[in-house]
Amino acid sequence: MANVLVVHGGGPTAVINASLYGVLKEAKEYQEIDHVYGAIGGSQGILEERFLDLSGFSQERQELLLTTPGTAIGSSRYALEKEDYEAMAAVFRKYDIKYVLMNGGNGTMDTCGKIHRACRESGIRVVGIPKTVDNDIAVTDHAPGFPSAARYIAQTVAEIGVDVKSLPIHVSIVEAMGRNAGWITAASVLARKKPGDAPHLIYLPERPFCEEEFLDDVKRLYEEKGGVVAVVSEGLRRSDGEPIVPPVFRSGRSVYYGDVSAYLAELVIKRLGIKARSEKPGLCGRASMALQSPVDREEAVVAGREALKAAVRGESGVMVGFVREEMKDQSYRMKIRMIPIEEVMLCERVLPKEYQNHRGNDVTEAFAEWCRPLLGVEIPEYLDFQEVYRERGGTE
Amino acid sequence: MANVLVVHGGGPTAVINASLYGVLKEAKEYQEIDHVYGAIGGSQGILEERFLDLSGFSQERQELLLTTPGTAIGSSRYALEKEDYEAMAAVFRKYDIKYVLMNGGNGTMDTCGKIHRACRESGIRVVGIPKTVDNDIAVTDHAPGFPSAARYIAQTVAEIGVDVKSLPIHVSIVEAMGRNAGWITAASVLARKKPGDAPHLIYLPERPFCEEEFLDDVKRLYEEKGGVVAVVSEGLRRSDGEPIVPPVFRSGRSVYYGDVSAYLAELVIKRLGIKARSEKPGLCGRASMALQSPVDREEAVVAGREALKAAVRGESGVMVGFVREEMKDQSYRMKIRMIPIEEVMLCERVLPKEYQNHRGNDVTEAFAEWCRPLLGVEIPEYLDFQEVYRERGGTE
Repeated sequence: MANVLVVHGGGPTAVINASLYGVLKEAKEYQEIDHVYGAIGGSQGILEERFLDLSGFSQERQELLLTTPGTAIGSSRYALEKEDYEAMAAVFRKYDIKYVLMNGGNGTMDTCGKIHRACRESGIRVVGIPKTVDNDIAVTDHAPGFPSAARYIAQTVAEIGVDVKSLPIHVSIVEAMGRNAGWITAASVLARKKPGDAPHLIYLPERPFCEEEFLDDVKRLYEEKGGVVAVVSEGLRRSDGEPIVPPVFRSGRSVYYGDVSAYLAELVIKRLGIKARSEKPGLCGRASMALQSPVDREEAVVAGREALKAAVRGESGVMVGFVREEMKDQSYRMKIRMIPIEEVMLCERVLPKEYQNHRGNDVTEAFAEWCRPLLGVEIPEYLDFQEVYRERGGTE
Repeated sequence: MANVLVVHGGGPTAVINASLYGVLKEAKEYQEIDHVYGAIGGSQGILEERFLDLSGFSQERQELLLTTPGTAIGSSRYALEKEDYEAMAAVFRKYDIKYVLMNGGNGTMDTCGKIHRACRESGIRVVGIPKTVDNDIAVTDHAPGFPSAARYIAQTVAEIGVDVKSLPIHVSIVEAMGRNAGWITAASVLARKKPGDAPHLIYLPERPFCEEEFLDDVKRLYEEKGGVVAVVSEGLRRSDGEPIVPPVFRSGRSVYYGDVSAYLAELVIKRLGIKARSEKPGLCGRASMALQSPVDREEAVVAGREALKAAVRGESGVMVGFVREEMKDQSYRMKIRMIPIEEVMLCERVLPKEYQNHRGNDVTEAFAEWCRPLLGVEIPEYLDFQEVYRERGGTE
C-alpha cells in the first residue's frame, strides 16, 4: 500500500482546492493507494506531521472543494532550511507516503525540486501542481488560478466602467494584483467590448511608470469622456526601479508597500484638480467564487489528476504544465506536458514585450486573444441608453 | 394621452435599472400612457430636454435592465437652482409629461419634493423611487440598492475571511461604503456563520473611532488567530468629529478623502509590526451583478411599478416606502406605503444605537436578524479541513 500527500504553498487562488479535488478523484482509480493526506498548514505541516486523511470524506464533502475559496488544508510561506528536506524524507517514510504533490507557485516549485532531490533514493515521487494568480510560472502556457483572477478583473472593470460612464464625474484607479508580472493587470483589457469602453488605460509593472505621461493620458481622456478608468499594477516602478509608492515599513526581509491606486488617485486630484478615487479589490480578486473561471476550475482538477498520474507512473521532479494546441477552428484546447522542475524553479515569467503597447499604457490585441478563452465565459454587454441617445442624435 | 418621465439622481446601485424596468412594465397596463421617457444624464437632462423614449425598445432589450450595472439613462449630481424648477415644469408641459418619477437618494428626494411643489398647479404628478446603497433614506424599512450592497460586502468578507484563515499571516482591513451611515459596514456581519468567523471587527461611522482601542483589538485577535479581518467604514471619524484620514484636497465645496483602509493597514504595520493589507472594493460593491440580491432586484422592480401606480391614481409629492410585515412564521414580507416626501427630504438615517455593540467594534444580533432576509441568498459555508484537523485533535 502507498499513501499520497498533498501540500499547498503560498497564497490561495480561486481553484487551488479544485486541484486537491482532482487528486482525490484520481486516487480512487488506483487500488494500491490507501490514503490521501493533506499536510495541514503547508510545508511546516510536513515537518510537524500534521496530516489529515482526506480520502475518508464523503463525495459530497469533497465536491465542496470546487467552490471553497482559500486553501482548505491551509498553506504557509515558511522558509525551509537545508536540513528540513532530509527530515521531510524521513516523515514520508514513516507515513508510507510514496507520492508527494506540491501545489504552489515559483517558491513552492523550488521547494518541490529540493524535496525531489532529497527523496530521489528512497523511491518517493515528488510532483508539482502549478498554482498562481500572478501567472508568473515559467514554461507552462498559464497556471491554474490565473484564469479566475483574469475573469475577476475583467468582469469587475467592466462593471466599474459602466458605473463610471453612467455618472462620468471621476477618474477611477483600479489596482490589480501582480507585483512583478502584469498578467492580471493586462487581463482587464477583456472588459473592453468596443472602442472607448473601460479600461481606458492599463499600466503594467514590466514598464517604467512615468507620472507625467500618466497625468497627460488621464487629463486628455477626462476632457474627452468625463469618466476614466485606469487599471494599474500594485507593483508599478519608476525608471530607476524604485516603487512609485515608497515602502511604508521595512522589517527584516519584509517590505510593506502602500497602495498604488490610492497614491495615483491622490496624484490626479492634487495635480489635475480632477475628482479621482481608488478601487483595490485586493484579496477579493483571488477569493471570489462567483467569478471563478469554469475553464480554470476544470483545468485545476485536471492538473491535480495529472500530477498523481505522473507520480504513479514513476515520474518525479516534474511539474504539470499546459501546452496550448493550435486548432484549425481557433477553438481552445490544452494538452498536458510534464515539465522538468529545474526549468521552473524560482523562474519568474513576466508579460512579454509583444503583449505591451508602444506607449506603455495598454496591451495588444495579441494578448487579448491569448487571454480571452481562459475566462470561460463572455463578459456581458450592458444596456446603455445614453449611447443610444447620442447615436440617434438627440431627443426623438 | 400622457407621458411618463424617469429621472435618475446620484450614484448608481446594482438595481436602479431594475426600478426603471418596473416603470416600463407597469406603463404597459395603462392605455392612457403613450411614452415612457428617460431623462438622459439626470436632472440636467430635463433642463436640456434630453429625452429618450424607452417604451419603444423590445421586451428583450428592456429585460437587460435587470442585469445592467450603473444607470442605463445616466445620472447627475447637478445642484439645481430655484429657477430650474419652474423651467422644468415648462419642459414637462411641452412634452405632455404627466408623471415624473425621480429615482434617487436623499438629495434626489429633496429635488423630487421641490419639483412636486413647482408642478402642483399644473396637474403633473411627481413621485419618488428610493435608491441608495448607503441605506440612509428615512422612514422606509430600507431602500433598493442597499440589499445588493449588503450581499456584496457579506459575501466578499466571507471569502476574504476564508482566504486569510487559510494562510493566517496578516490583518486585512476591508473598507466599506457609507461615509455617514454604517449600514453597509454593518452588513458584513452576515459573513459570520459561526463564532470566530470573519469579520472579527466592525467599525461604524456612527461611533467615534479610537485608534488605541482598535490597535488593542487587532493585537489581541492577531495573537489568538494569526489572521484578522476588520471591516471599516470609509467615513470613520475621531471623537472630535474630524475624519481619521485628513482630507487629501479641498476644492470649493468638494473635499477629497484618503482611503481609511490603507491608513489603518499602515497604522497596524507601523504601530504593531504586524503585516497588514487593505482591500477596498469601492465601486465594485454597487456594480457587481453576480452578487446582486434577488430580493433587492424584485423589490426595485416593485418600487418602480408602485411609483407609477401611485402617480396614475393621483398621488404626488410622495416616495415609495417599504414597511416590514411582522409574520408569525418569521418569514420576510414587505408591503408598500407611500411616504410624504417632506418626511424624507434631506433626512439622513444612520445605524441606530441598538444595532451597535457596547465597545463599538461590532454590531448586534438584532441587526443581523433585520438584515439577513435582504440578501435573498444564504452566504455559503466553506470546507475547512484545518478546522476538522483541530477538532479531531491532530493526525489520525
